[in-house]
Amino acid sequence: METLARHLATSILGRAEDDFSFDHSFQNSRYSGYLVGPIFCVNHGIGNPSLSVALHEIFKLLYRARCSDVTLIRIGTCGGIGVDVGTVVVTSEALTVGFEPYYNTSSLGQPLRLPTSAHVDLVEDLLQCRGDNSTFQVVKGKTYCADDFYQAQGRLDGSFCDFDEKGKEEFMNKLQKLGVVNIEMESAGVLGLANRVGVKAAVVCVVIVDRITTDLPQLNKQEFQQIEDHPMQLITAYLQRHIH
Amino acid sequence: METLARHLATSILGRAEDDFSFDHSFQNSRYSGYLVGPIFCVNHGIGNPSLSVALHEIFKLLYRARCSDVTLIRIGTCGGIGVDVGTVVVTSEALTVGFEPYYNTSSLGQPLRLPTSAHVDLVEDLLQCRGDNSTFQVVKGKTYCADDFYQAQGRLDGSFCDFDEKGKEEFMNKLQKLGVVNIEMESAGVLGLANRVGVKAAVVCVVIVDRITTDLPQLNKQEFQQIEDHPMQLITAYLQRHIH
Repeated sequence: METLARHLATSILGRAEDDFSFDHSFQNSRYSGYLVGPIFCVNHGIGNPSLSVALHEIFKLLYRARCSDVTLIRIGTCGGIGVDVGTVVVTSEALTVGFEPYYNTSSLGQPLRLPTSAHVDLVEDLLQCRGDNSTFQVVKGKTYCADDFYQAQGRLDGSFCDFDEKGKEEFMNKLQKLGVVNIEMESAGVLGLANRVGVKAAVVCVVIVDRITTDLPQLNKQEFQQIEDHPMQLITAYLQRHIH
Repeated sequence: METLARHLATSILGRAEDDFSFDHSFQNSRYSGYLVGPIFCVNHGIGNPSLSVALHEIFKLLYRARCSDVTLIRIGTCGGIGVDVGTVVVTSEALTVGFEPYYNTSSLGQPLRLPTSAHVDLVEDLLQCRGDNSTFQVVKGKTYCADDFYQAQGRLDGSFCDFDEKGKEEFMNKLQKLGVVNIEMESAGVLGLANRVGVKAAVVCVVIVDRITTDLPQLNKQEFQQIEDHPMQLITAYLQRHIH
């Protein structure tokens, strides 16, 4: 997160490469955040419950700081479904358990379901930000947001597994038929909560493994770092257009 | 987590105070773990999805390392319901949305529900470990495991809120009638997954705020550190009895 904030400080705000200061920052055992100009970079841990704590705090902070016209973008990695490794996926909406476009949370012990569509104009805007000389593809599609890394994502190599290869294959086929192009663990929370409070939001994730062919990424460290940089390149291009 | 591991290395294994080595350790941006003798201390982030990733990995590791007769204990902080601040709660079972004793996860896009009862003998054993001169109470009760810090726990101060003081009060009354004595965010995952793989497990959390009277802890830093130490004292007593 610190690396991203430093990168944006130099590339977007034109600050010196050796300027290691932030306008504000915090680090604790749970989250860390870095403010550079009008850009606030925060990590959120794994899964929607962890993310929801961070997002509630950020939304309250933005309200107190009287920020308006806020844009929220989650960047991260994901598994692809029939999509090349290195491709950047911009989520149109997030599906969850039951393949429905809702973030499932709760209020006073009862279910609370929040719609998970991404902001249409923001998504289109992001899709336009791929450079002509870009080495990677940028695609739009639905994202399956899983509440677990193993069975929920059709992986066979967890500490237990209640299905076989055939079950996994049917799951992948089902997702593909529904227009799902990637799987991760936080898109529903980001979009559901942002929709609830009226903040425009998008999710931009890079594919590090094509789940149709394998469950484990086949990348060495250098390849991984290169690919992990793809969403950052897209976001940098987006911010260059929008921050003056 | 490192502090806990060091404390256990000296108090349980009799290692020197200035021995800063571990038998094994790892730290990455997501989790960290420390092995001292037969005790493995690992953090798990916030919420069940984050925890489930760590637990699957640990269960696989234990299997590969041919460990048997494993005991899993989560320690942490929680909100109490009509329980004094500083009290240590040993969970009998975890309730989730709908007030049912199940960990709600999913498999291949369909709901998967795992029972969340704690290991009965382990719970009774832990309750016996409170020292005669102990300054805090140890109680057994049901735990409400929430998927969010705000609305799911009846808090009114999130970035949005769909209920009022009366709604919160009714929620707290409902929990109390069901025998719930505390609220946190990971007990269902710990117990549900441990039951599924046949590992005996318990959850031991210290109350840092009584939710019947207030939503925010009223402790200064020193008081917080003192109280945060209570579960560690109970676990130390438990390990002293069981590790030879």
